[in-house]
Amino acid sequence: MFEKILIANRGEIALRILRACKDLGIATVAVHSTADADAMHVRLADESVCIGPPPAKDSYLNIPALLAACEITGADAVHPGYGFLSENARFAEILEEHGLHFIGPKPAHIRLMGDKIEAKRTARRLGIPCVPGSDGAITSDEEAKAVAAETGYPVLVKAAAGGGGRGMKVARSEADLRIALATARAESKAAFGDDSLYMEKYLEQPRHIEFQVLGDGEGNAIHLGERDCSLQRRHQKIWEESPSPALNAEARVRIGNIVAKAMQELQYLGVGTIEFLYENGEFYFIEMNTRIQVEHPVTEAITDIDLILEQIRVAAGAGMTLRQEDVTYHGHAIECRINAENPISFRPSPGKIRHYHPPGGMGVRVDSAAYQGYVIPPYYDSLLGKLIVHGKTRAECLMRLRRAIDEFVVDGIETTLPLFRALVRDKDILDGSYHIHWLEQFLAKGAIEE
Amino acid sequence: MFEKILIANRGEIALRILRACKDLGIATVAVHSTADADAMHVRLADESVCIGPPPAKDSYLNIPALLAACEITGADAVHPGYGFLSENARFAEILEEHGLHFIGPKPAHIRLMGDKIEAKRTARRLGIPCVPGSDGAITSDEEAKAVAAETGYPVLVKAAAGGGGRGMKVARSEADLRIALATARAESKAAFGDDSLYMEKYLEQPRHIEFQVLGDGEGNAIHLGERDCSLQRRHQKIWEESPSPALNAEARVRIGNIVAKAMQELQYLGVGTIEFLYENGEFYFIEMNTRIQVEHPVTEAITDIDLILEQIRVAAGAGMTLRQEDVTYHGHAIECRINAENPISFRPSPGKIRHYHPPGGMGVRVDSAAYQGYVIPPYYDSLLGKLIVHGKTRAECLMRLRRAIDEFVVDGIETTLPLFRALVRDKDILDGSYHIHWLEQFLAKGAIEE
Repeated sequence: MFEKILIANRGEIALRILRACKDLGIATVAVHSTADADAMHVRLADESVCIGPPPAKDSYLNIPALLAACEITGADAVHPGYGFLSENARFAEILEEHGLHFIGPKPAHIRLMGDKIEAKRTARRLGIPCVPGSDGAITSDEEAKAVAAETGYPVLVKAAAGGGGRGMKVARSEADLRIALATARAESKAAFGDDSLYMEKYLEQPRHIEFQVLGDGEGNAIHLGERDCSLQRRHQKIWEESPSPALNAEARVRIGNIVAKAMQELQYLGVGTIEFLYENGEFYFIEMNTRIQVEHPVTEAITDIDLILEQIRVAAGAGMTLRQEDVTYHGHAIECRINAENPISFRPSPGKIRHYHPPGGMGVRVDSAAYQGYVIPPYYDSLLGKLIVHGKTRAECLMRLRRAIDEFVVDGIETTLPLFRALVRDKDILDGSYHIHWLEQFLAKGAIEE
Repeated sequence: MFEKILIANRGEIALRILRACKDLGIATVAVHSTADADAMHVRLADESVCIGPPPAKDSYLNIPALLAACEITGADAVHPGYGFLSENARFAEILEEHGLHFIGPKPAHIRLMGDKIEAKRTARRLGIPCVPGSDGAITSDEEAKAVAAETGYPVLVKAAAGGGGRGMKVARSEADLRIALATARAESKAAFGDDSLYMEKYLEQPRHIEFQVLGDGEGNAIHLGERDCSLQRRHQKIWEESPSPALNAEARVRIGNIVAKAMQELQYLGVGTIEFLYENGEFYFIEMNTRIQVEHPVTEAITDIDLILEQIRVAAGAGMTLRQEDVTYHGHAIECRINAENPISFRPSPGKIRHYHPPGGMGVRVDSAAYQGYVIPPYYDSLLGKLIVHGKTRAECLMRLRRAIDEFVVDGIETTLPLFRALVRDKDILDGSYHIHWLEQFLAKGAIEE
C-alpha cells in the first residue's frame, strides 16, 4: 500500500480523498495555491505545500510544482481528483517516469477515452451499444448527408475534440445539416484548434444514465450500478440519483454486465464511468470518464462501498477485493450540487461565508470544504458542496432531501439552494419523469425565487 | 396525523425531533428557557415560545408554561424527547386532560416501568428473563440473608425508587450484607424519600445489552435488535454499538422474540428499551425505559428505520406499518457521546464555541445542536453532540470512527474527544471485549491526554 499520497486538487474532493487516505492509514499531503492557504483540505492534511499563485495553470495544473511537492514531502503516489490533471495522460506518464504512482487508469486508456471518436470505436468493438452515426470523422458534406439518410433525422453534429457542448449542433433536415456542419466546424476550430466532426442520431428527450465501473488493470472488473444524471444545465449535471427512476432491475443487470465485461476485456484499472443516453428502452454510449466523478457518493450511498478507497487500493496493486455478487443495492440516493452562484443568472458569487449550517440527521451526508468564515476565492469552479441524501425508497429520500435543503443555511454569498428548493417540490421531479432537456425548460419558465 | 407538535426539550434531541416532524410535514413549536434563546432548535422550528428562566424546574419541567405554549400556538401534540418530562406519567395524563396528545407510552405503562420492583415483576410475568433475587421489596435483614443464600454471593442491594447508581451496594459475604443494607437504605431515603430495597444476584463482568421495541398500543409490537452499551462511566453510557460484539444471530432472534411478544401482550405504545445484563450467554432484565433513548441512532443506522418518525406515527394512531420481517440489519454502527467536559476530571466545560468543525464523509452522522459561536449554557446536561458512524463491518466502522474523531474540531471549550481518541485505539475496544466495569478500570489507569 502507498505510504503517503499527495492530493493534486482542492475543495470538497480534496477533503473526500483525504478522508479515504485516513481510513486506510495513509499519510496525506495537501497542495494549494496562495489563494487557498486557509482552505479546509490544507487544515486537515498531515502536510501541505504551496504550489503557486491563484490561476490554476500556475498551481493546480503546474506539473513541475507538483513533482517538486512530491520530492519535498516524499509522497509516493498522487491522487488527481476530478478536473485539473485527472484526465491528463501525459501527467500520469510523467509521474511514472519519476517513480511515482498515478492513482488512475493506465495512460493509454485515458488517451483512448479522451479521443471521442476512438472511444466510440472502442465501445462498439467491446459490445457496448452506441448511437448509430458516422464511423469516425466525416470527411465531406456528402458523407454527412449519406449518414443522416441512414440514421434518419434529426442528427447531431459533434466536434471530435469537443466537450461541454461546444462544437455541437442539431440538424432536423438536409438544409439544416449544411449550416450545422459549417458552424460546428468553425466553433470546433476556434475552441479546440481541430475541426474534425462526427455525426450521430439525435435523441429527442433521452435520459443521461451512466454506469460506475471498477477494475484492477488485470482483467478483473465489476460495475456498481447506474446513476441518472439527466438534470443538467448547459451540460453541467446538478442533480444525480440512483437507481434511475426509468430503469428496471433487468435492464440494470443486462447493461451492467455488458460494461463490466468490456472493462474486463480492456483490462481497465481504477474507477471509471460509462455514460449513456437512454431513450425508449435503448442505451446509447456517449463517452467514458476515466476518473472519479463528482456524483460518486450517490453510488456509495446505495452500495455502502467507498469508491475512493477502492480506487486507491487497486492503484496500489492490491487487486480486486470485490466480486460482482458483493455489490448489492439498498434504498435510493440523490445528490444535489449546491453552487456559490446566483440561482437565476448562475453568475458565480465568491466571497465570505458569514453563517454556515449544513443539514444533518438520518440519511444526510454533506461533502463540502466550506466553513463559517471561509472566503470562497473567485478563481475556481463554484461548487460549494454536495448534499447527498439516502432513504429506503425514492419517496423517503425526497422527503429527507426536502427537509435537508430547507435546513441548509449559507449566509454572505448567493447559492443555488433556491433552485433545489423549487425542484424538490416539482411534480415531474417527484414523479421521476424528466430528461436531459427538462431542466433548461424548467428554468426558462422563471419559477425560481431568489 | 398531528398538525403541530410542541417539542418539550432542548439540544440535539429537540433538533432530532424537529427533523422527523419536517419529514412528516408536521409544523413545529420549539420551547426554550431564557438561556436558550439562541439555541439551534429555536432557530430551526416554525415557531418558538419562551417558557421561563434557566433552571429546568422553571422552564423545561414547567408544566403550566408548556400547556400555555400549546394553547398559544395551537399545538395538538407534545414530544417530550428524553430526560425532563419524558417519563412523567402525570404529565402525560395532564396533556390528555387538556385534549392534547402525549407522544409516548400509555401513562399506566410509564408508571409501571418507573417502579423498579413492579417492572421486574411484570417482566417475569411476561416471560422476560430476570436476575434471580428477592420477589419484590425485602422486608427484613433475615429475608435478605435467605435470598442471598439462595442466589449465592455476591449480591446487589438496590433502592426500589433508584436510578443512576444511587442506593446501590454490592455485598460479597453475609458480613458485607448487613452494612450494604443499612447504607443503601439511608442513601435511598435521602435521595428518593423512600427506603424500600430489593436484592438480586450480582454479576461480575456483565455486558449491558438492550433491545429496542416499538408498539402500536393495540397488541402489535416488534423489536429492532440490540445495542451494546457496556461502556459506562458512573452508570452513564458513553459508547453504544450494534450489533453487540458479544451476541450471535441466534441469541438476538431468541431474546428479541421474547421482548416483542412481551410488548404485544402488554399492548405497549411507542418506542421503548428493554435493558439487560448479559453474562455467560444468559440475559438478565434490568429495567425498561419508556421513551426514546440517546443512543437510538445506532439502531437507525443498521436498520434504516427512523425511530422518531415511527414513534410519532404510532402515537397519532396510524398503527404499525412495520412487521418484524421488515426489520433487517446491515453493517455495524457505533455512537460516541461527546460531552462538553474535561476529558480527565469530567468537570462540565460550558462557554463559547470559537471554532466548530463536525466530521463528515461516508458513514458519518453527527447529531448536535452546536454551532460556531454558540455559547453552551451552564444549566443543563453537558452532551455536546453524538457522533454516529456506520460501516459494512465492525472493522470498517472503527476505521471510519477513528478518522471522524480525529477530524472533529471544537475550540473554546473542553470536550471528551480525547477520551474517544484513546478508546478507538485500545486493543480491548478493537477486539470488542469489554464489560460494564471496563471503562472505569481504563480511566483509573490515567492513560488519556488532554
